[in-house]
Amino acid sequence: MKIDLLITNCVLLPCPGCDTMLAPAFIAISGSRITQIGPMAECPVTEIRTHLDGQGQLAMPGLINGHCHAPMTLFRGMADDLALTTWLHEHIFPAEARHVSPEMVYWCAQLAAAEMLLGGVTTVADGYFLEDVVARACAEAGIRCVAAQGVIDFPAPGVADPALNIEAAQCFLEQWQHRDPLITPAVFAHSPYTCSNQTLVRAKELTRKYRASLFIHVAETREEIHQVANPLAATPIRHLDALGLLDRDTVCVHCAWADDQDLDILAERQAGVVVCPQSNLKLASGRAPLLGMLERKIRVGLGTDGAASNNSLDMFREMGMAAKIQKISPCDPVAVSAARILAIATSGAASVLGFGPGHGLLAPGSPADLIFIDQQQPHLQPFHSSNLLVYSAGAADVRTVIVNGQLVVRNRELLTINLQDVMNQVRRLAVAS
Amino acid sequence: MKIDLLITNCVLLPCPGCDTMLAPAFIAISGSRITQIGPMAECPVTEIRTHLDGQGQLAMPGLINGHCHAPMTLFRGMADDLALTTWLHEHIFPAEARHVSPEMVYWCAQLAAAEMLLGGVTTVADGYFLEDVVARACAEAGIRCVAAQGVIDFPAPGVADPALNIEAAQCFLEQWQHRDPLITPAVFAHSPYTCSNQTLVRAKELTRKYRASLFIHVAETREEIHQVANPLAATPIRHLDALGLLDRDTVCVHCAWADDQDLDILAERQAGVVVCPQSNLKLASGRAPLLGMLERKIRVGLGTDGAASNNSLDMFREMGMAAKIQKISPCDPVAVSAARILAIATSGAASVLGFGPGHGLLAPGSPADLIFIDQQQPHLQPFHSSNLLVYSAGAADVRTVIVNGQLVVRNRELLTINLQDVMNQVRRLAVAS
Repeated sequence: MKIDLLITNCVLLPCPGCDTMLAPAFIAISGSRITQIGPMAECPVTEIRTHLDGQGQLAMPGLINGHCHAPMTLFRGMADDLALTTWLHEHIFPAEARHVSPEMVYWCAQLAAAEMLLGGVTTVADGYFLEDVVARACAEAGIRCVAAQGVIDFPAPGVADPALNIEAAQCFLEQWQHRDPLITPAVFAHSPYTCSNQTLVRAKELTRKYRASLFIHVAETREEIHQVANPLAATPIRHLDALGLLDRDTVCVHCAWADDQDLDILAERQAGVVVCPQSNLKLASGRAPLLGMLERKIRVGLGTDGAASNNSLDMFREMGMAAKIQKISPCDPVAVSAARILAIATSGAASVLGFGPGHGLLAPGSPADLIFIDQQQPHLQPFHSSNLLVYSAGAADVRTVIVNGQLVVRNRELLTINLQDVMNQVRRLAVAS
Repeated sequence: MKIDLLITNCVLLPCPGCDTMLAPAFIAISGSRITQIGPMAECPVTEIRTHLDGQGQLAMPGLINGHCHAPMTLFRGMADDLALTTWLHEHIFPAEARHVSPEMVYWCAQLAAAEMLLGGVTTVADGYFLEDVVARACAEAGIRCVAAQGVIDFPAPGVADPALNIEAAQCFLEQWQHRDPLITPAVFAHSPYTCSNQTLVRAKELTRKYRASLFIHVAETREEIHQVANPLAATPIRHLDALGLLDRDTVCVHCAWADDQDLDILAERQAGVVVCPQSNLKLASGRAPLLGMLERKIRVGLGTDGAASNNSLDMFREMGMAAKIQKISPCDPVAVSAARILAIATSGAASVLGFGPGHGLLAPGSPADLIFIDQQQPHLQPFHSSNLLVYSAGAADVRTVIVNGQLVVRNRELLTINLQDVMNQVRRLAVAS
């Protein structure tokens, strides 16, 4: 078979979390798939379209950002060190009412895509308004995106009449189904406190019909328990369960205040979870019981959340925080190891987002979504173990990024879109805000 | 006056924590001092030796790493996800017994210095064995260093007979007093559980005589309370106080388990504190009561600790963690703001380390220790506030570094030492380990 892209002489981490590294190694890609990996001694000699020398670089599956609101880069650093309720109602919702437009969503989502690609994120699960614009921005930037159209019971950008929010989501699913290999359409119901029971149930029915994922913010803050309009449900997660919302295709985002019974329910229903430790900390929302989730074999991914609450989309920083924050109480250093976090941020997240089993691994047959880390940096010396990817590597160590078999970043240069232009556009929009 | 170095057209953050930015601005340096700052309209026209264009860059005081063991870069990632006691006694102490030599200390300290300079750290407070070698390595690399000779009641590298540990420290103070403008010698008593009362008292007497700082790890873990050989002292900090060790020139490192009475004592004695949140979390030691310290106006700095327990020496990542971890319990998002953390990592730390009032600021008369952040990065768009330096910037965003008036890093190139050679040497030592 013809090889479209061959990478030679790299260090290979085929399965993050397994900590088995192979060096020197090669990776062969044909079309959008990895066809072969192995030691250099077995490197194929055949017709090769593009060859990259991976000397001094570690190849690993691309990171998966399990939860983001890409267009919110416009609000990065606009309102820091505030509690979620104040931040959301006094700053973010008003700013969104003033500034969210197709133009804003396009440029700010491209900025987010650029930041993520340059930081080694090859797949993002995004949820926002005007998500068709986000999907277009991401497809052009070359990042794989599970793009979820926002559903909320308020007038929202693109959906002035909330009574039409499910119809708008359906249009979006219709529009993006099978349209672009990088885009998987989905639905994002904002939360149990901003969506009525009827809206939640209709959103789930819609995603079932289209075999799409349903994302929802749930149990983000302690106060949320009092905000859910269901006196029969003791917690927001039990509220969702009572409505029949929890199954394998539902992704519960945050779950910072999931109690043991909630976790049992999530496990029983096989629902997926995405935790966002940095955003939860910055908004003083809490800390998700990641250990309890893993003990119950709940599928878990890791997300940055939007740039307004993080304030970066750096999944390396997120991994470091996720590992360290779990060790604080109970004081248990092995609670969640660096290797476990690497698995969560790659193959674990892929499963949560509904991708097949090869996604998030470097193996023959896997989608060719991979990144190369420059190991020749002082903070990565000596490279005793892949734990350094969690505890010392950063977004800027990513040199080369391949998504769906396409070279998207080469030697830290973004090849798909004009980054300078995107930054200029976002700055212009920010000055106007 | 002749200007040795003039930087023009930059954005200026003269006083991190104040959040007052000036742009476009200039900075004039003569010898080792800043002589003038101001808006470009007032930029002096005079004889200038070197001119740098700061367009697109933010100038701020260099970061101060308040606690490090520079040579421990050799052990980076060697033993992760372990509790402090296991980590120290089963991994680190044995590895140190096998590997610490003047050669190891020299190359590994240079690696640390390179990593820190490239990450915007212009001053480090280091404590290790063979600290004269660390001091030499740092002076050559061009980083300002409060170099503290380690004192411990075990046979240690360079001091085979622990009965001579105070004499060795005295030799070190003698040797480095007034020798190099970048090096301030000091003493580092390892901890109250590895130093006898007599050793602690003698170490303090020595530093008093030389007007030097005394550093000590204290209250790092909950167990430490049982390890201190003083049945009359309820806590390690009260133990140090009973021995008369606490004053303005004592720097208590960690204090993760300082209780309210301990904090009152630290405030009363005007002792300084350095907190190391990432190391404390990774070793599951605990979390320092930073808010209680600030409420009592205790002088506080921030440190990475050594690379073996962090595993990076990235003060940006440390600042992000320090701000976020304080918000978790009680759930208070304004507990410690990003601005406060910026002040702690610059002028706050300078005060703890005994530097004069201009240190850690960009002001006429301040030592010319400053860094330039590349604002033209996607994760720093839009730059709504200097909070982004804490919540989104990373070590790799540092473009240019000036220490004591000397250009040390220019366009991310380390000008002082051969980084490739240093990395090769450390890799060679690591393979042998």
